[in-house]
Amino acid sequence: MKRKIYLDYAATTPVDRRVFHAMLPYFTKKFGNPSNPYAFGLKAKRALIEATREIVAALNCALDEFIFTGSATEADNLAILGVARANREWGNKIIVSAIEHKGIHAACNALKKEDFEIVELPVGKNGLVNPAELAKFLDDKTVLVSVTCADSETGTIQPIAEISEIIKAFRKKNPMPYLHTDASQAALCLDINVKKLGVDLLTLSGHKVYGPKGIGGLYVRRGIAIEPIIFGGGQQRGLRAGTENVPAIVGFGRAISLAQRYRKAESARVKKLRDRLEAGIFKTIPKVVLNGNKTRRLPNFLNVSFLDVEGEAILLYLDGKEIFVNTGSACNSESLEPSSVLMALGSPYEHVHGSIRFTLGRETTVSDINYVLRELPPIVAKLRRISPLSIKY
Amino acid sequence: MKRKIYLDYAATTPVDRRVFHAMLPYFTKKFGNPSNPYAFGLKAKRALIEATREIVAALNCALDEFIFTGSATEADNLAILGVARANREWGNKIIVSAIEHKGIHAACNALKKEDFEIVELPVGKNGLVNPAELAKFLDDKTVLVSVTCADSETGTIQPIAEISEIIKAFRKKNPMPYLHTDASQAALCLDINVKKLGVDLLTLSGHKVYGPKGIGGLYVRRGIAIEPIIFGGGQQRGLRAGTENVPAIVGFGRAISLAQRYRKAESARVKKLRDRLEAGIFKTIPKVVLNGNKTRRLPNFLNVSFLDVEGEAILLYLDGKEIFVNTGSACNSESLEPSSVLMALGSPYEHVHGSIRFTLGRETTVSDINYVLRELPPIVAKLRRISPLSIKY
Repeated sequence: MKRKIYLDYAATTPVDRRVFHAMLPYFTKKFGNPSNPYAFGLKAKRALIEATREIVAALNCALDEFIFTGSATEADNLAILGVARANREWGNKIIVSAIEHKGIHAACNALKKEDFEIVELPVGKNGLVNPAELAKFLDDKTVLVSVTCADSETGTIQPIAEISEIIKAFRKKNPMPYLHTDASQAALCLDINVKKLGVDLLTLSGHKVYGPKGIGGLYVRRGIAIEPIIFGGGQQRGLRAGTENVPAIVGFGRAISLAQRYRKAESARVKKLRDRLEAGIFKTIPKVVLNGNKTRRLPNFLNVSFLDVEGEAILLYLDGKEIFVNTGSACNSESLEPSSVLMALGSPYEHVHGSIRFTLGRETTVSDINYVLRELPPIVAKLRRISPLSIKY
Repeated sequence: MKRKIYLDYAATTPVDRRVFHAMLPYFTKKFGNPSNPYAFGLKAKRALIEATREIVAALNCALDEFIFTGSATEADNLAILGVARANREWGNKIIVSAIEHKGIHAACNALKKEDFEIVELPVGKNGLVNPAELAKFLDDKTVLVSVTCADSETGTIQPIAEISEIIKAFRKKNPMPYLHTDASQAALCLDINVKKLGVDLLTLSGHKVYGPKGIGGLYVRRGIAIEPIIFGGGQQRGLRAGTENVPAIVGFGRAISLAQRYRKAESARVKKLRDRLEAGIFKTIPKVVLNGNKTRRLPNFLNVSFLDVEGEAILLYLDGKEIFVNTGSACNSESLEPSSVLMALGSPYEHVHGSIRFTLGRETTVSDINYVLRELPPIVAKLRRISPLSIKY
């Protein structure tokens, strides 16, 4: 029997068994609408509050500082569109790093039509935003800065606390800007305490942390003006209309709580495996380049470029061996566009096209890694033999 | 042991067992991201397409005419905001009936800031929109008309096909408007064939048809210009970014398919019970008024006003007997505002405040109805004795 090796945990994770069992009663038994004032609805509401408690405990914020959304993309959109539109009187400039999630860039693009100016903050070859450089871009028109905690392609960890210091220094003389970070990928491995990070808004995702798909959320610090992007009933304090997705919220709460409880132990375990995979690849395969930052990186991320080969081809051959990896973020893979993050890092085009992202997770074992290290080198060698790029002129 | 009698199916439904079992594998086993090009992702994508097929079969439309959203509220918002913004060059007027779901009214309110003119189409005392009256409101600035299939408070069934004829006649000389309908409540009992209804856009909800919460969708006829309200990755043909919620979509597909398959038989069964409840109430309780339309009404809806009593009080006393009903739509119940639908019907304020909505469903039995008919009259009588409104001066 063939084994299946999933190394694409950054695209999506399976729902953890404990999360799954926490969710189950809310589909068929405790199915009430939390907006309803009778006992049956209140039971659903209580579950909703308990789940919120688990999340705000991880964030170190108040219950009324978290808004549930239908996805992290929606939370990113709410942060960008909602803060920009609500604070239009203060200015029309938004600064975002070049390596943000597509949800951020696309929402910013939409704002251009509303006369917002979008400034893209470059990242260095090391994959990092330079806080000092950010300082140069800040002015009294700037209402929002968004820098991801860790991007979804290389997992490079951004210096959010330092960026926050720059912004706080600027805010001594200005009311703005606010700082948003997308912690969708980071929440499994990093501390998401918003006070320590010093952020004003923070995005979380359910299905990136062994919770369900279709749920995400946004931390919004008290006192920040924000407009909804979905209007209707008064759910989520008027900031996100629609009947609350109780089972998913229950699962999300449990998933975040588990992720934060085990993040240190699991990070250490998975880092060992990732390092073994990385060392093995560099030892057995020539002409390989590491993408992103070698040290400041999520412990489950390995993004490498195999020169003279198409990443898509490697992906498909690995698929044939039941090894599932990715060429970029899942959000890009339908488009076949070159990875925007790797391009932003200044990687040459041919590196970007040969890139493969391995992301490890809770079910990854040392024998999985050994299997990949056996199967991958002959695939790369074979593809290089037939690659037109390898032909010597 | 006390029995629990849920008569608030219009607020939310339990997930049907068959739907639930169809969803389960997609949480922990077939958990792939449908955007991923390898076998594991394709399996998720195939499930997504299969579910879409079930829905478009019910709607009688093409696969690429349906967009999944995170809720019916989001679908309503997408219809209103998306069509208005994309067709701004054609006009800035939107006509909506006075008894639309809050998601419609709130999205329209948001559009006022973007210089749209919102015209509210009144309904008669019979709860119906008058198509001839709509004709008077149409002009060459009108880009969109939205009339619900059946409202969520009285379940009154609107003459959508007739409204469509009026609009089609108008469109012989004008490119616009489009017709949107919210069929969230109607999809259990009515035919949602969009060709027969003659609509251009139609909203569906998961959790109103024994599917999961956190999923909804919008039928958008081919060729209609519409802008997304959530931006990001290219999912759902660029019209709704965010990783697709595969388990919920699978459940939604199954739920719509089951609802449409059994709608006639189930409608007949539930109508008998509803009629029994209605007759019993009018027989045993004095000073009761039926809200909405007696004949053109969803077969599971009964909305009545008990004069001289607060609906909230009845609700709470019934709650004590483990009978769960509602005072209006669940979307209103947090606010304690008087029902906007009943106000639009021209009901006097004191009728609105004494209103109770009973909505029956798949698990409602004749003995449930008998139990309610035993418990309800003494509660109303008791409340009337202590009501200041009953005091004779």
